[in-house]
Amino acid sequence: MTLPRDYGGQSCALSRSMEIVGERWTLLIVRDAFQGVRRFGEFAAHLSVPRAVLTDRLATLTGAGVLERRPGAGRREVYGLTAKGIALWPAVRALSAWGERFHPAEGGARRVYVHAADGAPVDEDGRCTACGGHVPVADLVVVPGPGPRPPAPAPIP
Amino acid sequence: MTLPRDYGGQSCALSRSMEIVGERWTLLIVRDAFQGVRRFGEFAAHLSVPRAVLTDRLATLTGAGVLERRPGAGRREVYGLTAKGIALWPAVRALSAWGERFHPAEGGARRVYVHAADGAPVDEDGRCTACGGHVPVADLVVVPGPGPRPPAPAPIP
Repeated sequence: MTLPRDYGGQSCALSRSMEIVGERWTLLIVRDAFQGVRRFGEFAAHLSVPRAVLTDRLATLTGAGVLERRPGAGRREVYGLTAKGIALWPAVRALSAWGERFHPAEGGARRVYVHAADGAPVDEDGRCTACGGHVPVADLVVVPGPGPRPPAPAPIP
Repeated sequence: MTLPRDYGGQSCALSRSMEIVGERWTLLIVRDAFQGVRRFGEFAAHLSVPRAVLTDRLATLTGAGVLERRPGAGRREVYGLTAKGIALWPAVRALSAWGERFHPAEGGARRVYVHAADGAPVDEDGRCTACGGHVPVADLVVVPGPGPRPPAPAPIP
């Protein structure tokens, strides 16, 4: 069943968020942006998402001010997180932590978010597991975890 | 374009979470469960979601162990959050807070999560804005905010 993008009759804050980031793949695009993915082709290769879907989702995210187009190297534009996009970090972190806790990958997490200052992992409430402090996005580093390596990216047609 | 429920090629924790709670309406059902909604008819009236969609989403959530069926009053079963479902609280809170911050409802939030001990609102990282402590789900109370009242529920066919 195809459902409309909006949530008729719902006026809560969660439904307003889901109208922007509740589409399939959208939060994975935002997650990739946190991990440094910038170019259309990189998103397409990294996510193996149909290009038409990626185009639609990037349009939604730029239209909503979550991502913005910026000049990249050469003639290509890149996508970067705005302040509004960076503010999605607690949601991305919480959903990632939940998946890791209840549906762990064999061998452990593929990527781990750590506090740049001391190298310790960040817990699901965004606190450093070593110093206990709340870690802002700017002080986070994504490092490879013990889990399986990602599959080789699909060739870009 | 209809996309499959799974995210082919993605093995990250976020994609595993989204396979369960990334379907349209699913997180709103979980949010309602946090706010005390228990019966099928109450979810249907509160969310104005097509009953076929609600049936599908509740089946997904019970199948994944996020909700469980429990004996209710009379012959009707009710749905309750499991420990795995309660663990979704940081995600529900973060996405709600983001919607409230960047797409505020006219007049303010319709519902506010407060710390039962001192009645102060909880911030988007789950800390009490008065005492500064981290507030577990069991110590949360949902109270009406200054925002618009919800629309009258649609009649249940």
